[in-house]
Amino acid sequence: MKVNYVTISREYGSGGREIGKKLSEKLGIPCYDKEIIEETAFKTGFAEEYVKKQGEYANARNWLEYSFSSRNSYGMSPEDYLWAKQREVILDLVKKGPCVIVGRCADYILRDRTDVLNVFIHADYKYRRHRITDIYKDPEHTEKMLNDIDKKRKFNYKYYTEQEWGKSQNYDLTLSSSALGLDQCVDLIYGVVEKGLER
Amino acid sequence: MKVNYVTISREYGSGGREIGKKLSEKLGIPCYDKEIIEETAFKTGFAEEYVKKQGEYANARNWLEYSFSSRNSYGMSPEDYLWAKQREVILDLVKKGPCVIVGRCADYILRDRTDVLNVFIHADYKYRRHRITDIYKDPEHTEKMLNDIDKKRKFNYKYYTEQEWGKSQNYDLTLSSSALGLDQCVDLIYGVVEKGLER
Repeated sequence: MKVNYVTISREYGSGGREIGKKLSEKLGIPCYDKEIIEETAFKTGFAEEYVKKQGEYANARNWLEYSFSSRNSYGMSPEDYLWAKQREVILDLVKKGPCVIVGRCADYILRDRTDVLNVFIHADYKYRRHRITDIYKDPEHTEKMLNDIDKKRKFNYKYYTEQEWGKSQNYDLTLSSSALGLDQCVDLIYGVVEKGLER
Repeated sequence: MKVNYVTISREYGSGGREIGKKLSEKLGIPCYDKEIIEETAFKTGFAEEYVKKQGEYANARNWLEYSFSSRNSYGMSPEDYLWAKQREVILDLVKKGPCVIVGRCADYILRDRTDVLNVFIHADYKYRRHRITDIYKDPEHTEKMLNDIDKKRKFNYKYYTEQEWGKSQNYDLTLSSSALGLDQCVDLIYGVVEKGLER
């Protein structure tokens, strides 16, 4: 089976986004990441910053707080509404043709397709700390966020998919970017896309 | 860093053993699987069949039963004694030079080395059921065992390593043999061994 779509889930600071971008350049297809945020913001009327954070960490709250969260006119919480709209955006983008999608539970959203290669990128703590503090050098990226963001992604993924984020059985391929290096990760995924899947 | 050793952990029926064997042939290095069982049986005096099963599923029992398990003259349960001896056998085999090791928590036993590539092979249920019922055609391999054996492996791995079996972050590379096919799995691992690691 030909691979038309690659989804890349990733630990914070593992370089998953960079891998997705390099892979898409090598394959000559688009990589969707911030486009999903922009389009979802446009569709929902939410601010891009809200979509960026809530779109992946929507439900990283305790169940009690969640039970009392506000409902909009669709009878949904704002987070569920955001999830539904973000899902629509992803499905619309997929209609345009082959692409790479970073994050946003795209692996789950596209689970009924057989032409999707699902990848998870992780890295050891030292490597991720180095990337976020020395490479990004952005006050938005701090060591504290290393733990927080992944915890939230994990919770959000579980909430909407009932699957476990980062569990190898949910992906076709998982790679340690700290062990393999970013370029080798790109090459390995590229190789699988070229060769195809057996399912 | 050059890769001198490859450990392959695997779901039952995923073809991990076959991948290990083919990889070792391609690399021209030995693949240890039953050799570990034979040598451990020799060292402990236990029957090979006992070592084969208990060496990977030693502690798949409830803690209460375990608390009252018999102790031998070393002050250990037979399972702990087997674990210690099996560990010795693996460390001795590693001294002989580069190799592929299938199962037996070898990834954990060799965790302090940086020249080890740790791989986990899994596959979807349908593929594994097909392999064990249609390919092995062995009354020893039944569908019931599909669930049982992995549960036991998981428990045993957790007991001795305090890590989670099959969790992607514990491996450099995890592969779905049902999605990628056995030959592509062999090629991907071979490629990483040839290219080396960045740690």
